[in-house]
Amino acid sequence: MIKVGIVGGTGYTGVELLRLLAAHPQVQLTAITSRKEDGMPVADMFPSLRGHVSLAFSSPDKAKLNECDVVFFATPHGVAMAQAPELLKAGVKVIDLAADFRLKDVAAFEKWYGMPHSCPQILEEAVYGLPEINREAIKKARVIGLPGCYPTTMQLGFAPLLAQGKPLISETTLIADCKSGVSGAGRKAEIPTLLAEASDNFKAYGVKGHRHLPETMQGLEAISGRKVSLTFVPHLVPMIRGIHSTLYARILPEALSTDFQALYEKYYQGSKFVDVMPAGSHPETRSVRASNMLRIAVHRPAGEDLLVILVVEDNLVKGAAGQGVQCMNIMFGLDETTGLMHVPVLP
Amino acid sequence: MIKVGIVGGTGYTGVELLRLLAAHPQVQLTAITSRKEDGMPVADMFPSLRGHVSLAFSSPDKAKLNECDVVFFATPHGVAMAQAPELLKAGVKVIDLAADFRLKDVAAFEKWYGMPHSCPQILEEAVYGLPEINREAIKKARVIGLPGCYPTTMQLGFAPLLAQGKPLISETTLIADCKSGVSGAGRKAEIPTLLAEASDNFKAYGVKGHRHLPETMQGLEAISGRKVSLTFVPHLVPMIRGIHSTLYARILPEALSTDFQALYEKYYQGSKFVDVMPAGSHPETRSVRASNMLRIAVHRPAGEDLLVILVVEDNLVKGAAGQGVQCMNIMFGLDETTGLMHVPVLP
Amino acid sequence: MIKVGIVGGTGYTGVELLRLLAAHPQVQLTAITSRKEDGMPVADMFPSLRGHVSLAFSSPDKAKLNECDVVFFATPHGVAMAQAPELLKAGVKVIDLAADFRLKDVAAFEKWYGMPHSCPQILEEAVYGLPEINREAIKKARVIGLPGCYPTTMQLGFAPLLAQGKPLISETTLIADCKSGVSGAGRKAEIPTLLAEASDNFKAYGVKGHRHLPETMQGLEAISGRKVSLTFVPHLVPMIRGIHSTLYARILPEALSTDFQALYEKYYQGSKFVDVMPAGSHPETRSVRASNMLRIAVHRPAGEDLLVILVVEDNLVKGAAGQGVQCMNIMFGLDETTGLMHVPVLP
Amino acid sequence: MIKVGIVGGTGYTGVELLRLLAAHPQVQLTAITSRKEDGMPVADMFPSLRGHVSLAFSSPDKAKLNECDVVFFATPHGVAMAQAPELLKAGVKVIDLAADFRLKDVAAFEKWYGMPHSCPQILEEAVYGLPEINREAIKKARVIGLPGCYPTTMQLGFAPLLAQGKPLISETTLIADCKSGVSGAGRKAEIPTLLAEASDNFKAYGVKGHRHLPETMQGLEAISGRKVSLTFVPHLVPMIRGIHSTLYARILPEALSTDFQALYEKYYQGSKFVDVMPAGSHPETRSVRASNMLRIAVHRPAGEDLLVILVVEDNLVKGAAGQGVQCMNIMFGLDETTGLMHVPVLP
Repeated sequence: MIKVGIVGGTGYTGVELLRLLAAHPQVQLTAITSRKEDGMPVADMFPSLRGHVSLAFSSPDKAKLNECDVVFFATPHGVAMAQAPELLKAGVKVIDLAADFRLKDVAAFEKWYGMPHSCPQILEEAVYGLPEINREAIKKARVIGLPGCYPTTMQLGFAPLLAQGKPLISETTLIADCKSGVSGAGRKAEIPTLLAEASDNFKAYGVKGHRHLPETMQGLEAISGRKVSLTFVPHLVPMIRGIHSTLYARILPEALSTDFQALYEKYYQGSKFVDVMPAGSHPETRSVRASNMLRIAVHRPAGEDLLVILVVEDNLVKGAAGQGVQCMNIMFGLDETTGLMHVPVLP
Repeated sequence: MIKVGIVGGTGYTGVELLRLLAAHPQVQLTAITSRKEDGMPVADMFPSLRGHVSLAFSSPDKAKLNECDVVFFATPHGVAMAQAPELLKAGVKVIDLAADFRLKDVAAFEKWYGMPHSCPQILEEAVYGLPEINREAIKKARVIGLPGCYPTTMQLGFAPLLAQGKPLISETTLIADCKSGVSGAGRKAEIPTLLAEASDNFKAYGVKGHRHLPETMQGLEAISGRKVSLTFVPHLVPMIRGIHSTLYARILPEALSTDFQALYEKYYQGSKFVDVMPAGSHPETRSVRASNMLRIAVHRPAGEDLLVILVVEDNLVKGAAGQGVQCMNIMFGLDETTGLMHVPVLP
Repeated sequence: MIKVGIVGGTGYTGVELLRLLAAHPQVQLTAITSRKEDGMPVADMFPSLRGHVSLAFSSPDKAKLNECDVVFFATPHGVAMAQAPELLKAGVKVIDLAADFRLKDVAAFEKWYGMPHSCPQILEEAVYGLPEINREAIKKARVIGLPGCYPTTMQLGFAPLLAQGKPLISETTLIADCKSGVSGAGRKAEIPTLLAEASDNFKAYGVKGHRHLPETMQGLEAISGRKVSLTFVPHLVPMIRGIHSTLYARILPEALSTDFQALYEKYYQGSKFVDVMPAGSHPETRSVRASNMLRIAVHRPAGEDLLVILVVEDNLVKGAAGQGVQCMNIMFGLDETTGLMHVPVLP
Repeated sequence: MIKVGIVGGTGYTGVELLRLLAAHPQVQLTAITSRKEDGMPVADMFPSLRGHVSLAFSSPDKAKLNECDVVFFATPHGVAMAQAPELLKAGVKVIDLAADFRLKDVAAFEKWYGMPHSCPQILEEAVYGLPEINREAIKKARVIGLPGCYPTTMQLGFAPLLAQGKPLISETTLIADCKSGVSGAGRKAEIPTLLAEASDNFKAYGVKGHRHLPETMQGLEAISGRKVSLTFVPHLVPMIRGIHSTLYARILPEALSTDFQALYEKYYQGSKFVDVMPAGSHPETRSVRASNMLRIAVHRPAGEDLLVILVVEDNLVKGAAGQGVQCMNIMFGLDETTGLMHVPVLP
């Protein structure tokens, strides 16, 4: 059994980790920290966990976290990098759901997240936790920086196009028009995500610039080995879970005869959590609700030179907690799908 | 033109007042105060008002409010009673959307609202702003305490039964099972009313006791002139606007042959904002969305001795801002419906 | 492995059965019938099942159903009773999610469902599939009539009060104010349950009389052994899944000192799918979303003589498919919870 | 007073026309036809209209429609063209909310709508009812083909860029990623727009080709006088009303120094129903809910060469019924805003 600790279990990614780990056959939930809710049984805050999780929140207490095999950070940016050094010293692996170990460029991190990075050496060894791209590195990793929810869809959506030896598309005019449910904003008391504000409403936000842009560009360039340029426009959808990314890529004249459907199917044939749907499909976010699956459909409307790639995921599962568990499985030599084969909840 | 001031224009009842008053043919919006947003054009906070409201928020400034004919308080409890004395002295009428002038019993106010009442004399003269019950008193009032959103539905729903010379129903076993959209909780940054918490979800709350209970009991006893007892159970509905109250009353044996449909139609025949629907109707909250109408349907399932009264209103209009404008119309000798004849928005 | 057939797999209870059974460790999905979709892979209609269910719909074909150990009917009323006799003859057990085997009184069935009953003898032997009440009978049953979604909440909510040797409450003035998500209306193309009609809206329906009333009365009288009278008012909530029933019962004078919290806890101490929450709780429907759990909270506001019982369930799980699987587990000697311990999905 | 008839008053655009026209100071509602609901008071079907509309539906009866000054067709495609010739002969103006008079190219109409066009001569004289572009022609029109809901946003969003003497953007690589509430699908009993299907869900549809594409291309080419090419991807948002279109246009090298904010403000300075918001704005669909306003924000993220234009409208008002009333005002010499100055409903 893998002894697992969670730092910050009161947010949406925290409670989702609890949902997944409580039913994971190889996991023993060992500690959940919350400074504010010290002593409160987790199931008192989240009655959905009654009968499944008997732990109580405890104040951060390194001794106990040090006894874990792996610690997940479901915390605001900056917490994981403060605690990671000591955990690593104690032989505990670290999986961060925030941004501390995503951006390899320290200056970029400091610019976009507005804080200095406290452990650049650990950042250097950290592995970007996108198993479909980095599976081998994850196997040996001690520290994982999990991708953001949007970046997971954008990278997995564009990857097959960029991973080829020579460019198939105009790699510097990519567009990602992304739509997310409001749980992506976290469990924070803020007016714009109140039901009375966000329900029966739709809007774009952060058009000027969003933290997930540099992360995605870094990932795409790592895949292609070439310079990539992307315009990313996020939108808020009046639903709880789910991301739908609509990706646009202009096909290069010399690649117009490519069979893109086949290209995608081949690229993901070994990836159990990526489902390339039949040509012509329109994946719905609910088709992955509460599951770790990500679905992709490849379109080329009217035979034009524009590819339209549709990608859906559950932002709290494949976009966060589920991807974390997938990485954990890989790191500990389990089958990648252990504890993650939930049938999506529909309707 | 009536010069109108609004204290506290940044909440839902405030913006709803602005929507109604901006289009009111006899009103000149004169001042809107918000300490926090001093100087910000109202339409910057609420782009829906662009082109309709050119005022900016200003810090509370009595001089200007003193120049108004009437001031609405769309503020937390306690604000109106602090400012009312000076306004009244200056000849300005006061309409409070909060609870400062609802409960006639000072001790009850202090118990349920947890603060001392600063002007009991004004409380004494204040009129409870439910026009269908108190029209004559409202005409002459200087200070109005507007009913809460739930109490409006409960009082107008039970009133025809209680207003008769002798009891028709068991008046001490009334039940009100009420359901409200989340805008009733106000425009406050709180976790339980986030879309990710309240959407696709339903729950009761405040079953032990809710502030709208003593207010409603006071109103019902004023109508009947007899002791009334009521159990009130509020619930939260995943929608923005609307209250649906399902009221239960046990018919007394001697009143079993009463024609309750006729009783209701007669009681409300002069009330333009109360619509007694045909027997057998199931009013929907959307049928009054964004309008000042309240609809009632009278049921007596299976000919039993239990009356089931269904009542719907828009909590922000007939349950708050619209009722305030209705009172203002009456106080200033206008037709009661002036500026209030919006066709409900459906779908 | 239990060989399972499903008749009528294209509705919401059908796809929910598939979700539960696809992950059930002791089940082999053997046949799914749909006359209309003959030959279509189930996962083409419900992409959420891609990778989990490889079966295709087939036209009703008794040979194959006859090879099953148990057949679920997720069909309109009337289908199960037509096919049950032959299946039983072949030694196949039958679990009907519709109403064919709920009402013991044939005349009542024919009145409320508008069709003659084709096999009253089978109706006689059929067991009402509410395990918390009928566990022993279910063990030996060949035919199960599963409770309706509302009746499950009303019966489990009132049962502890009615199951005592002498009456504790006024058993002829019960009230059930119930609220359901729209999936309860089924996967049928009808205008009133369109998103544009039912969203941001709330209404009661069927106040005059609803088919779930006679079924519930029958169940309550079976529990108490005395005459019971109930007023049942259903409402439609703008959410997908979930039922919240608010039950009202008047305590008899001689029972005013009863400890009702203890009474409920004791009654359900052996029932793993009924969670009596701590006194003062307000259960939310999302706390049981996508799980077979039903939660109850007992309230007695202001120490009055009125009990308010709050009950939540997922109408598609404990109110339908999950309860069916629970019965199947019992019928086949498995642990009652096998394949049913899903952690509810929150948020 | 303008005598107005409506053919097909039972759908969403029909009831929205009724909402707007019932309160229009210069309109006398004269006839509403529905073959199926002959004799039923309109307010029985839509209780929101109780007290506002006293008309009953009547079977199509040309005599009465012939007495109108103008007839709106809120019908399926093909109805208006069948009845228009006789109405025009009788001197009645025609405003069609469907597609009969949108596409100038008869062959294109027949290809996309799958029916022959019965009156190509009338099609020739018909005016495309987009007042911000065609105001002068509308003044003199006898027949109006109102734009589709999506095309209104796409044309008004791209128009200022295309209306210049020389190209500023790459006019053959335009992208429109559009998101619509479900009322756009009409009041039709269909499974995909049930609340239980479409709520808490997001998807694209019609990526291969959508009828609004040829209409939009025709409009854009009319504006620019040059060939235009557009990729249009519509999506379904779990909300009732509202369209948010995110438009992408690549700036030509020679136009990189253009002040696009100023360009838009100038282009729309005389248009009261188009609001060019301050630079950096993110318009929300609710900011135009139930109003005829359309709002636009111009973005150029990171100073790149890609313009991102955000456009919102209420699909039932500016995207249908409101635009129809706006055209009627223009055709009858009224101020364009008569009866259309509703303050948007927020929250």
